[in-house]
Amino acid sequence: MANLPYGVFSIGAEPVRRVGIAVGEQVLDAGAVARAVRADFADLLGAGSLNPLLAAGPAVWRSVRAAVLGWLSGAVRAEAVRPHLVDRAAVRLHLPFEVADYVDFYSCEQHAVNAGRMFRPGAPPLPPNWRHVPIGYHGRAGTVVVSGTDVVRPAGQRREPGSAEPVFGPSARLDFEAEVGFVVGAPSPRGRPVRVADFADHVFGAFLVNDWSARDVQAWEYVPLGPFLGKSFATSVSPWVVPLAALSAARVAPPPRDPEPLPYLRDVPGDPWGLDLRLEVRLNGRVLSRPPFAAMYWTPAQQLAHLTVNGAALRTGDVFASGTVSGRERGEWGSLLELAWNGAEPVRLAGGGERAFLCDGDVVSISATAPGPDGAVIGFGEVTGRVLPAAG
Amino acid sequence: MANLPYGVFSIGAEPVRRVGIAVGEQVLDAGAVARAVRADFADLLGAGSLNPLLAAGPAVWRSVRAAVLGWLSGAVRAEAVRPHLVDRAAVRLHLPFEVADYVDFYSCEQHAVNAGRMFRPGAPPLPPNWRHVPIGYHGRAGTVVVSGTDVVRPAGQRREPGSAEPVFGPSARLDFEAEVGFVVGAPSPRGRPVRVADFADHVFGAFLVNDWSARDVQAWEYVPLGPFLGKSFATSVSPWVVPLAALSAARVAPPPRDPEPLPYLRDVPGDPWGLDLRLEVRLNGRVLSRPPFAAMYWTPAQQLAHLTVNGAALRTGDVFASGTVSGRERGEWGSLLELAWNGAEPVRLAGGGERAFLCDGDVVSISATAPGPDGAVIGFGEVTGRVLPAAG
Repeated sequence: MANLPYGVFSIGAEPVRRVGIAVGEQVLDAGAVARAVRADFADLLGAGSLNPLLAAGPAVWRSVRAAVLGWLSGAVRAEAVRPHLVDRAAVRLHLPFEVADYVDFYSCEQHAVNAGRMFRPGAPPLPPNWRHVPIGYHGRAGTVVVSGTDVVRPAGQRREPGSAEPVFGPSARLDFEAEVGFVVGAPSPRGRPVRVADFADHVFGAFLVNDWSARDVQAWEYVPLGPFLGKSFATSVSPWVVPLAALSAARVAPPPRDPEPLPYLRDVPGDPWGLDLRLEVRLNGRVLSRPPFAAMYWTPAQQLAHLTVNGAALRTGDVFASGTVSGRERGEWGSLLELAWNGAEPVRLAGGGERAFLCDGDVVSISATAPGPDGAVIGFGEVTGRVLPAAG
Repeated sequence: MANLPYGVFSIGAEPVRRVGIAVGEQVLDAGAVARAVRADFADLLGAGSLNPLLAAGPAVWRSVRAAVLGWLSGAVRAEAVRPHLVDRAAVRLHLPFEVADYVDFYSCEQHAVNAGRMFRPGAPPLPPNWRHVPIGYHGRAGTVVVSGTDVVRPAGQRREPGSAEPVFGPSARLDFEAEVGFVVGAPSPRGRPVRVADFADHVFGAFLVNDWSARDVQAWEYVPLGPFLGKSFATSVSPWVVPLAALSAARVAPPPRDPEPLPYLRDVPGDPWGLDLRLEVRLNGRVLSRPPFAAMYWTPAQQLAHLTVNGAALRTGDVFASGTVSGRERGEWGSLLELAWNGAEPVRLAGGGERAFLCDGDVVSISATAPGPDGAVIGFGEVTGRVLPAAG
């Protein structure tokens, strides 16, 4: 009851998609309840995606959440609610919103340091801009898929060590990246930057992201314009969007920054957007790592302020992801690239075997919890995906 | 009559947007004619964007074009057509389609060589992947704007030469990039690469792009993940989409490539997608350069094949742009960065004064022509935009 995340579901083989709210082991058909008892919410909750609700803005988000809490606590007739609770096992979950633009950040210091040590040994591990700029880039919105969608191993160009010429074929270095994503609800016009202080006026909620990465494709293509095909084949997201309103007990001070960020990136005193989410990555059911989100150098509020400081507009459905989450300890790193040190130190799996990169058939699942009010624990569900062999 | 480009317009202060076809100095209200004489096309042409037509695919594109040619050549009652021809001066032009994903390539060898010489003097000007990979990256779809939209000078972080720390403020190195864009009509599913041979089954047409760039912001931010805020404040597009069907006389063999591209990137013999478009860039009404599109190293067909070879899906409204178009001669270079050699050699303007980068109030216009059938010349109209001073 502390969480009440939003998603989109269908029942059995029905084509109709409905806005749902997860309540324990059930899903509330929110549009159906609204039609029965809150006609003014029927359009917001009666669509096949969260977009109308997202676009409505923070005052409406609060009203809807308060109403839903009321529905579940008996403030309306139980007959109006109970018939619209569906067992989770009976529903199929869909992409919860239409993705407008998708931006992926690179905001975890430990991850950036690990990447620097692997790819630029002997040089300073962080690029000179890293502690000034929340580094990010645009990804492909059209290949964001919901948890449970199979991921076909992509083909592409890669260059073998010691060779001058590339070869073409299935990626031999397929990886996951454990990240946290945020979705913009209320848009902002072109030319109007969104301040750190206004984060919660625009962002509706958070979810989990697996930013699948073909490391060999990425390594060959990314100079000078950044990752492209090494990322654009698929990005998986968890089906439940946890509203920021559910995360008040998870808000923590971000780590100290040195040097102090430029003024447009400064945290607002007393209004921290570090978030104490504890991620867990499982490979074929066995825990591989436990990345701590609280350690992120740049908060999502800083990321959004940076994204818009040049006047870029926000649209409903804009998504931005944190970048790979990695803690100090090896058991907290959020990609196989790091865990197996670019293939040099394959990870021994608890069930036997080892992995340098992902194999066909591997199933990667990322879940997370966060502190809720009064000692409760909020779950994020999970984002999961199975690797299928490259296409014919 | 050889061109018949498609756009979206409104009349006077009316809010309703209509699909239009440019015919000389007039615009045909295509939806209105369809409702009068071709009810089966009424939905395709009766929307406020080109998206329904784009999504319908190449067989329908051919049928609609044949019908429009008939309407204009008197094959239907003139009374059904004439009332729906509107003077261009009376219409306002809008973004012609809803942009799904936006990709920007870097496919002009001369431009890449110029950039390499400026930024990596003494090193080989092309990165080692350049002749193997059509380098590209995703841009911000939500800030694609139609020609005529003012562009506010963006603010951002930049680092002055010799300084270790960045400063924040309006970009001091605002630039244009003259490019050609392509819009995807027929989608393709995830996991199904689009071959070079299938380019015209998916791409509907071409238009002009000004990929505004804040060079100082870009230079500071782009390592290691590529351009982000240096580009995402605005990308301007011309309002008229020239269908590929109008460009048959403009198709030319692309330049020789060395080394031979990997098989998935090879041109189809007898089916060339080099395009002899002749661009013209004007600054405040005076010609600044004349970039030749025929010289592009990678064709749009190769770009699309590359973009999808990892299994990335295409959606209706996906846009990809060529990258800056620059010919061999200095008078053919497509950015001020190149023309003024990164500020070192300011361009003397025909009307007096000089420019290293764009000034507030500057108006940049890019137009293009192409050979049409029987010696005709096809016009692309133009993409224009005025630089406004930085906000606040």
